Amino acid sequence: LLWFVRVTDGMPDPTQRDLLMRQEASRQTGGRVTLTAAEQKLDSYLRRLKEQEMSAAPFPPAVHFFKAKPLIQKSPVFKLLQKMPKGAALHIHSSSLVSAEWLVRNVTYRPRCYICFTWDNSVRFLFSERQPFPRWDCFYWQLLQTLRARIGDPTAFDNSLIQHLTLFTEDPDGEYPSQDVVWEKFEKAFIAAAGLITHAPVLRDYYYKGLEELHHDNIMYLELRSGLSRSYELDGTIHDKVWTLKTFQEVTKKFTADHPDFLGARIIISVHRALTVTEVKAAIKDAIQLQKDFPDVVAGFDMVGREDSGGTLWYFREALSLPAQLGVTLPYFFHAGETDDEGSNVDQNILDALLFNTTRIGHGFALAHHPLAKELSRKRNVAVELCPISNQVLKLVSDLRNHPAAVLMAEGHPMVISSDDPSLFGTAGLSYDFYQAFVGIGGLKANLGTLKELAVNSIRYSSLPAHLKDTGQAMWQKKWDAFISDNL
Amino acid sequence: LLWFVRVTDGMPDPTQRDLLMRQEASRQTGGRVTLTAAEQKLDSYLRRLKEQEMSAAPFPPAVHFFKAKPLIQKSPVFKLLQKMPKGAALHIHSSSLVSAEWLVRNVTYRPRCYICFTWDNSVRFLFSERQPFPRWDCFYWQLLQTLRARIGDPTAFDNSLIQHLTLFTEDPDGEYPSQDVVWEKFEKAFIAAAGLITHAPVLRDYYYKGLEELHHDNIMYLELRSGLSRSYELDGTIHDKVWTLKTFQEVTKKFTADHPDFLGARIIISVHRALTVTEVKAAIKDAIQLQKDFPDVVAGFDMVGREDSGGTLWYFREALSLPAQLGVTLPYFFHAGETDDEGSNVDQNILDALLFNTTRIGHGFALAHHPLAKELSRKRNVAVELCPISNQVLKLVSDLRNHPAAVLMAEGHPMVISSDDPSLFGTAGLSYDFYQAFVGIGGLKANLGTLKELAVNSIRYSSLPAHLKDTGQAMWQKKWDAFISDNL
Ligand SMILES: [Zn+2]
Ligand SMILES: [Zn+2]
Repeated sequence: LLWFVRVTDGMPDPTQRDLLMRQEASRQTGGRVTLTAAEQKLDSYLRRLKEQEMSAAPFPPAVHFFKAKPLIQKSPVFKLLQKMPKGAALHIHSSSLVSAEWLVRNVTYRPRCYICFTWDNSVRFLFSERQPFPRWDCFYWQLLQTLRARIGDPTAFDNSLIQHLTLFTEDPDGEYPSQDVVWEKFEKAFIAAAGLITHAPVLRDYYYKGLEELHHDNIMYLELRSGLSRSYELDGTIHDKVWTLKTFQEVTKKFTADHPDFLGARIIISVHRALTVTEVKAAIKDAIQLQKDFPDVVAGFDMVGREDSGGTLWYFREALSLPAQLGVTLPYFFHAGETDDEGSNVDQNILDALLFNTTRIGHGFALAHHPLAKELSRKRNVAVELCPISNQVLKLVSDLRNHPAAVLMAEGHPMVISSDDPSLFGTAGLSYDFYQAFVGIGGLKANLGTLKELAVNSIRYSSLPAHLKDTGQAMWQKKWDAFISDNL
Repeated sequence: LLWFVRVTDGMPDPTQRDLLMRQEASRQTGGRVTLTAAEQKLDSYLRRLKEQEMSAAPFPPAVHFFKAKPLIQKSPVFKLLQKMPKGAALHIHSSSLVSAEWLVRNVTYRPRCYICFTWDNSVRFLFSERQPFPRWDCFYWQLLQTLRARIGDPTAFDNSLIQHLTLFTEDPDGEYPSQDVVWEKFEKAFIAAAGLITHAPVLRDYYYKGLEELHHDNIMYLELRSGLSRSYELDGTIHDKVWTLKTFQEVTKKFTADHPDFLGARIIISVHRALTVTEVKAAIKDAIQLQKDFPDVVAGFDMVGREDSGGTLWYFREALSLPAQLGVTLPYFFHAGETDDEGSNVDQNILDALLFNTTRIGHGFALAHHPLAKELSRKRNVAVELCPISNQVLKLVSDLRNHPAAVLMAEGHPMVISSDDPSLFGTAGLSYDFYQAFVGIGGLKANLGTLKELAVNSIRYSSLPAHLKDTGQAMWQKKWDAFISDNL
């Protein structure tokens, strides 16, 4: 490293200054990617677009995504990112995979869909042959078809249903004054969607539609976090986790057959961190068995739900050490450090995720504030799954230029981009999150090399076996080359 | 470093886990400070106070300072910080040293004070023997005494004057939607205060009052950034920079004589980055001469004003290399990286500040995003002057937990805390900024060791010669010991 800069006539040598600037730039994500002549040309074009975008006000990454979304949609940088082959989506939750738009305008129009409005201003859905029984949270079920027939303005009604299934609001700062409030709405929307998604015939279409939305955004592979909820038939029959897993497998097979440029999808089995240690133990045993039975589909295990209010990884240590005790391998993909409660017990999840040999870190929002854990994660090549829009909407950060991942990107820390809960945030695919990471977090210095490395990373850090990574890499490269030549 | 953690029965060894956590904690600011038994006791107490504070809503560092201020004033942590000997204030601008309250309630009540309301809703003040002539920005001057006599509610009127001299507003987000708007008001308030402060008889009292406010907040030394504006007498006589510097020297002497526990004050001569290269060259030559003539008072040189809209350091390189060309030493204390325009030319100021051998970095908000510059700054022991409230009010960051200095604090980067423009932000002394750094940026893991190191740093990284640092250190230690024993 060039620490001593020659000084001539009191002035630092401009050549050495340039060299230092290039040395620093080479450390960032994609900083060591060599670009072809064609790539360099596109990179220059992209930089010009970005400069224009960064000098305009308001700057989309600096404002709440719900207000920034229409601005981003008009952005030429975003349009290019949509066309770009982005590789894999490695951090999406199954309950928020498909747009609420589709759930309402398609699924709720299917026959025998009942709705119930709860006392706390939420909704439940249920498909049923006959009038469903009252439940503790739902006393009065109405057939949606009948209700719609009675309502004057079905479009307004449908929009109100969509509101129940997403976090979108015109006034995010007013409506979500704190993390507590936004997380409450978050959990409500999850529960509201469950009755639709877990209906067995819907589930098939839902997965297919989810893969379609990703494919449409030029994504070729998915790792989906799912609790493998039981699904139900019209007559009340309940299917178990295995059925759900098999369905996922079949749908994926069908989708890749229909779309040969799609590589596939796998499941990261997830349980909620609100469970007891005993329950998590049982879930881990289950996951071990499922991974044995479906090695191609099950990638590993994770704990989900708001970190600040659930048990820490260390709290679950007896459960998490089960696989090693049993002499089996269950790869972990832990959410960790999705918090700004610095120095608390929750804040230690990042270190514990690493000590339990996590394969990747979900979010790792707090990682930059943990120098030792950061080194450990880098040394072990454990990538951070950066989900910028999720972090903003869930109120960890407002201006994305201050996202701590800016530090990680500047240092070239292992990283992939994902969308966490696209349907809840009103995104689809990864283009919106790529935009925020590329324009907001990366700033002007992030370039085409950055984008290339982020896309390549998504295959490199996936749970795929080596030979499928090679296949994926080759498929991606072909798409990438086409993307470059199409956009010159 | 302990990279390999022993695993027993699938579980990471708890002792080694603890060790890792302690290793990480030892890296933070103050992480290697050894606390006495008494200090440890106070530390435990402080931690309990902090835990209570961090679990309450709203969390003051997460909301705008103008709304957080009344909450902070009630905080037991803040009250302790007020009593704590904080060492030196190394980053304050002379035009915003003394509270607007004092300017209005004391200075504007002095005889022959004229006021003028400008077309752009600002004010100008002027002390004059007779009715001042109209100026380009001021057509109609009124004697304040006469005006006040005609106004029904002088308290309301005085409050409106205070508003002109500070950035305070009940609705900061609404009134300052962008950095541009808040900086405009910022510059206006500076200009409004100038007519009061640069009146020669006021200037003496102003400096004295400024030192008093610092002393009252348990600060013992000041390095003041000042442009050494010319001052004026009632009859229109103008004093030059040398007069201003001498006045500062005399007042400091008087103040330290009156307060033997105050160490002193020095000036960092500052020029605005809106000047031309030629003008800056002249200013640097001036500064060299003034430092020669007043070696005890002049600490060095800086460039001030909004970085995003002024010339970069590299733009001024011919001027900045003058001292070395002339074979003299003029220490630099550059503002650098007070920007979120990542990857722009302005963003390179940090590297250039270091290449021009800056002694400290003012703000360094962008430093954490520059891994190479960060290493260079650490290696050369160049401290960052962290001014959290300034960064929040000037809209670089909203929730202070996301201030990039959290990374620097976690890594134990050389750092001091300061207040930048206390009168404009409505603070006095350093306690408010210490609170934000300690509770918001440092989080729960920042402890009494952190506070101790920050205070000690302020003397260590000052421009004082070695023997005065020793004196200062000894004076501070005495105060610190008393602080510990008084608060057990
Ligand atoms: Zn997630
Ligand atoms: Zn400043």
